[in-house]
Amino acid sequence: MKAAIVTIGDEILIGQIVDTNSGFIAKSLDKIGVRVHEMLSISDDKQHILETLSKLQNKVEVVVITGGLGPTKDDITKKTLCEYMQDTLVSDEKVLAHVTQLIEQYFKRPITQVNKDQALVPSQSEVLFNQVGTAPGMWMEKENTVFISLPGVPFEMKYLTENEVIPRLVKKYKRPYIVHKTLLTYGVGESLLAERIESWEDNLPEFIKLAYLPSPGRVRLRLTARGKDENVLLEAVQYQIELLQPQISDCLIGLDEEDTLEVVLGRMLTSQSKTIATAESCTGGKIASLLTSVSGASNYFKGSIVSYATEVKNTVLHVSEEVIKNYSVVSEQVAIEMALNAQKILQTDYAIATTGNAGPTKGDADAEVGTVFIAIATPKGVFCEEFNFGQPREKVIDRAVNKGLELVYKEILKN
Amino acid sequence: MKAAIVTIGDEILIGQIVDTNSGFIAKSLDKIGVRVHEMLSISDDKQHILETLSKLQNKVEVVVITGGLGPTKDDITKKTLCEYMQDTLVSDEKVLAHVTQLIEQYFKRPITQVNKDQALVPSQSEVLFNQVGTAPGMWMEKENTVFISLPGVPFEMKYLTENEVIPRLVKKYKRPYIVHKTLLTYGVGESLLAERIESWEDNLPEFIKLAYLPSPGRVRLRLTARGKDENVLLEAVQYQIELLQPQISDCLIGLDEEDTLEVVLGRMLTSQSKTIATAESCTGGKIASLLTSVSGASNYFKGSIVSYATEVKNTVLHVSEEVIKNYSVVSEQVAIEMALNAQKILQTDYAIATTGNAGPTKGDADAEVGTVFIAIATPKGVFCEEFNFGQPREKVIDRAVNKGLELVYKEILKN
Repeated sequence: MKAAIVTIGDEILIGQIVDTNSGFIAKSLDKIGVRVHEMLSISDDKQHILETLSKLQNKVEVVVITGGLGPTKDDITKKTLCEYMQDTLVSDEKVLAHVTQLIEQYFKRPITQVNKDQALVPSQSEVLFNQVGTAPGMWMEKENTVFISLPGVPFEMKYLTENEVIPRLVKKYKRPYIVHKTLLTYGVGESLLAERIESWEDNLPEFIKLAYLPSPGRVRLRLTARGKDENVLLEAVQYQIELLQPQISDCLIGLDEEDTLEVVLGRMLTSQSKTIATAESCTGGKIASLLTSVSGASNYFKGSIVSYATEVKNTVLHVSEEVIKNYSVVSEQVAIEMALNAQKILQTDYAIATTGNAGPTKGDADAEVGTVFIAIATPKGVFCEEFNFGQPREKVIDRAVNKGLELVYKEILKN
Repeated sequence: MKAAIVTIGDEILIGQIVDTNSGFIAKSLDKIGVRVHEMLSISDDKQHILETLSKLQNKVEVVVITGGLGPTKDDITKKTLCEYMQDTLVSDEKVLAHVTQLIEQYFKRPITQVNKDQALVPSQSEVLFNQVGTAPGMWMEKENTVFISLPGVPFEMKYLTENEVIPRLVKKYKRPYIVHKTLLTYGVGESLLAERIESWEDNLPEFIKLAYLPSPGRVRLRLTARGKDENVLLEAVQYQIELLQPQISDCLIGLDEEDTLEVVLGRMLTSQSKTIATAESCTGGKIASLLTSVSGASNYFKGSIVSYATEVKNTVLHVSEEVIKNYSVVSEQVAIEMALNAQKILQTDYAIATTGNAGPTKGDADAEVGTVFIAIATPKGVFCEEFNFGQPREKVIDRAVNKGLELVYKEILKN
């Protein structure tokens, strides 16, 4: 069965707001086996809304609409939906009581006409009661399509999707099973990876689809299986993963959708009772920031010395002035001293150090824009690699951050 | 004139990725007076793509398409566009040379067939040369509509939008003049701000529109003027800003659309020849990372000591063991020592220090999840404020980062 998601609101069309609601709804629908055929963002314009609804009518079984339910003048979704359903608006008693209570409780004033209008719903609609806000959700059926209207405020939309929309859809429709499995890889580009696993990909059964989801330094491989028997799907996907794994073992990070390199690293460090620190110049604390974005990071992350100014490399990180003078601040020698000293000062098993030139200008160093040295100190020693990450600044920083995590990951893997 | 934005890719329809490209393109089009009529996300499905293109044909003047240009098998946009244009794919020499050079430089290997295919473009298309990636953009005209295809990788899409798409559209089409001016404010909520400037807003001339663009801790006020005479628009907007400014001077950060607090801070520190450092616990280096995301940060940012582990607060940041024992690690006293010591150790004029509990569990400290102390050391002294930023972890960290920057900004403003 197919669904469409429609977002109503000018603020999205002028790029003021990024629509995150559709993604949330899509994920929720996908989980229960409803395929999202299309997502649309349209303006607060009656004609445009009517046209869109009638185009989707009988083409998909479910249309989920968000936005345009607020109390202000530009919010016209409800009236337009009512017109489309050839219905009339009536006040819903339960919603009215709820709105009255919310307004009195939070604003300490009686409700106004604008508030009262929030309780109006098309007479034939089923109200999706909004416990966490004033605008009710609505469920309307016309021929072979259900139109579901939700408020655009993200947490209200989420509440109604989880508590009202999904349970009702599960009850009403028979859906296929869908099994997703995602493998996170690093360090091998999308095209190289595709070539490497080509014959495996070509031999995938018809009901399993593969998608490449690249992000800087990473590629996620997503397997999606659709069918009638969940156990068959699970088994088939598992079998394909077992065939695939040996072919990508050198670049596989994890087998969980939520896995990121920092999460996997954290898991490994915790289980091995090892600790880590960073000494960052061009990455400016971003590696530390990523490592500490993971809950429980205090089990293995001790700290970082962000030595952005050359003098701080000497005064705090104790990199010798001579080394800096002889080799320049962007050099293998400095990166190595940074890593070793961070490991010693912060008393950790591992340390990641970065020094480079993120650009756009050459700055203190002689090094070309994009040059970055990354050193890794381990319990067994230290090593350094040189990179050129090109331009612009943002990309240089992000690639250095990724690479730093990758290099230490590979080392920890050896244990 | 009207445009549509089409995103191609299953990963968006299953909610795996939030489409931020459309918002960026919408904003860019809006700035030059092109109205976005509709945004669509559709699947990597040939029939669906063809139907969508033909529906938009002659209905809008411009269709900007992103995604599906990667080298892998699930990326079918290029072939499908070529079919829609009734054209054939030919290899573009300049693109091929560029791809070859990129692959050799970064991967130290010769190019493969998959890489070579990236240089294929419809013979009648105009190549939008992608300096920052391997997939070229394409500009194709059919009857009254221009179809523009861009890669889905955000920074490549951005590069091509700014450097190729917008300049060409400006050249090709006559559009109304649009003048946008954005003021960035902080620390005052949207509704409170709206009340405060209500009478000014009510007196805006018909051709100037105001929009509130809220984000955590910030509200952008965007004035948009549309008309035939650019100079009249510029003057009128300038006049309104002069009326508005005194009413929001206490919460105004900047008058430039690109302004963020870290950019404005950098500008102020540079012009005053002052320096800054951070001592971060719960924010884990994220304040340092934001400060160093700005080009030229080395003029004022010296470094950071990320003292995540309690012992590092003592050994590297020299916060006394007694203070930690007596007041606990999440306390005003510790935050103040962190700020003062960072200022001293890193020899700066200002220092921002954070210590708190980002959750989800209580960890080392007694403090409630969400509690954060932020201390600011200035040339004149030090102060500390306590916050409770609620949950979840990510929000606590981001709000602490924002607030730390705000507090130091207010101090520097006093000079």
